[in-house]
Amino acid sequence: MSDQPFRGVVAPVLTPFTEKGAVDQRRFVGFCRWLMQEGVDGLAVFGTTSEANSLSMTEKTELLDAAIEAGIPAARFMPGTGACALPDAVALTRHAVAKGCGAVLMLPPFYYKNVSDDGLFAFYSEVIQQVGSAALRVYLYHIPPVSQVPISLDLVARLREAYPKTVVGLKDSSGDWNNTKAMLERFPGFGTFAGSEVFLLDTLRGGGAGCITASGNVNVAGCRKVFLNWQGPDADALQAEITAVRKAIQAYPLIPALKRIVAHYHDDPDFARLRPPLQALNAEMSGKLIADLKALGFAMSPRATAAAA
Amino acid sequence: MSDQPFRGVVAPVLTPFTEKGAVDQRRFVGFCRWLMQEGVDGLAVFGTTSEANSLSMTEKTELLDAAIEAGIPAARFMPGTGACALPDAVALTRHAVAKGCGAVLMLPPFYYKNVSDDGLFAFYSEVIQQVGSAALRVYLYHIPPVSQVPISLDLVARLREAYPKTVVGLKDSSGDWNNTKAMLERFPGFGTFAGSEVFLLDTLRGGGAGCITASGNVNVAGCRKVFLNWQGPDADALQAEITAVRKAIQAYPLIPALKRIVAHYHDDPDFARLRPPLQALNAEMSGKLIADLKALGFAMSPRATAAAA
Repeated sequence: MSDQPFRGVVAPVLTPFTEKGAVDQRRFVGFCRWLMQEGVDGLAVFGTTSEANSLSMTEKTELLDAAIEAGIPAARFMPGTGACALPDAVALTRHAVAKGCGAVLMLPPFYYKNVSDDGLFAFYSEVIQQVGSAALRVYLYHIPPVSQVPISLDLVARLREAYPKTVVGLKDSSGDWNNTKAMLERFPGFGTFAGSEVFLLDTLRGGGAGCITASGNVNVAGCRKVFLNWQGPDADALQAEITAVRKAIQAYPLIPALKRIVAHYHDDPDFARLRPPLQALNAEMSGKLIADLKALGFAMSPRATAAAA
Repeated sequence: MSDQPFRGVVAPVLTPFTEKGAVDQRRFVGFCRWLMQEGVDGLAVFGTTSEANSLSMTEKTELLDAAIEAGIPAARFMPGTGACALPDAVALTRHAVAKGCGAVLMLPPFYYKNVSDDGLFAFYSEVIQQVGSAALRVYLYHIPPVSQVPISLDLVARLREAYPKTVVGLKDSSGDWNNTKAMLERFPGFGTFAGSEVFLLDTLRGGGAGCITASGNVNVAGCRKVFLNWQGPDADALQAEITAVRKAIQAYPLIPALKRIVAHYHDDPDFARLRPPLQALNAEMSGKLIADLKALGFAMSPRATAAAA
């Protein structure tokens, strides 16, 4: 793991399920391959969009192993390894390091609310010390709308000071540009990722690393154009295009919508399944979503072997 | 498992930790024994107060096994088996049934927020169907201040209708008496437990089953007095006593405070440890808490073998 292992457009990879509700490893690996072909800069498997907290520990470690064994370079993975239970976060992080993953993306423990920064610092410290590897690189995962447990700027400062080689970045999914801006200003050189491509250009202009974005699952190509041209004359126009697509998608429940989009454009209806408590879009919403995207001229390149991949 | 396996005062048992941060099975079993001696009606191990979501699956199953092997009747256990991940909830619930536990207490999946009742119904349905045992008895666990995922009255109605022999009760930790009252009125005969002894007398008068309460860990005796005398002339005075104790405790962070109280009254300082992200009370708060309780005349009977138990 290098000091700043990731830059650009990272996708929190969707997790497909079989008809019986098991994790569909074959479809997952095929989808990872397609994302790599599209030019994705990293695979943040086991993020919020991946329904990671709906997966057991074993499902997660086996899925990561399957993808690496299938030949996708381990260094491109940034698995989510945060958990409510310290021993779970330690075990998942240790596994990711052992497999050679580029970094991990770590949620705070999210069951108890209104916990102190001291308590969160102690949690992250314990994970880092128990894993005890110089190869570990941690991106903190700030997503208060879902976790309801924020990672404050002061906590980031403490963790960076205590573990300068290990705590190398953060994904800001607050949806609050002022928070991302404050991060970028206070921590130059830190690997700050926007949690949505809506803020990609602003993040890059502010010295950030890129975006780790749910819609990276369906619009790698568009996001990569902004990343590659952010200093060029078309940057704002390119940003406007990906913002429009994102807004069309997030008018619907985000994870079901993304799975529906993949199912549609890859002609793979089985991809649309979710694990409870999440539920698939109904037929009417599915139709409207696809119509909205077509109206924007949105398309996805096919998977080499589509449903079979 | 009988149709209404629990009534009275149930304690969500505190989980002690060793100096190295591991679960302290020996102290846990000793504390369960003490609660039984105090007359507790049930042991809701792996609740919020138990720091259950800070424990791994293996820690939980091994802890339950240790307590049962130590001779505490399995039928007195109501382990928490809810989890974010469906396979985890299934595995824990299956284990509890196999061990002969009286019932389970089941959180909704709590990572995703604003999920639909359809999604929660699907989650609970899947667990019940995958466990597939006529012996299973489920108490739903409504604790929106922490889980941020409420269990609506309509969801309770749907689950009762679909699984009348299985879904037999609910713990209402909303802290909102109007919600408990609405439950009692809409579902007579359902095993409704207040989530705090502050509402114990009102719950019993409304036809409810009792309370499953954090402070049951330190005040079984007081709560039991209300339960045994709720129709007697002293009921309101007895209720006022336990309410005063509860209010004194919850003026402090509740779980750290309860562990500190046990540590103090059982002369067992090691009992006060918590697992991150939770943190122990500092010395000043600890001193004030104990002084507040002494001012109320509060006491706890000793553990037979105290620190060694």
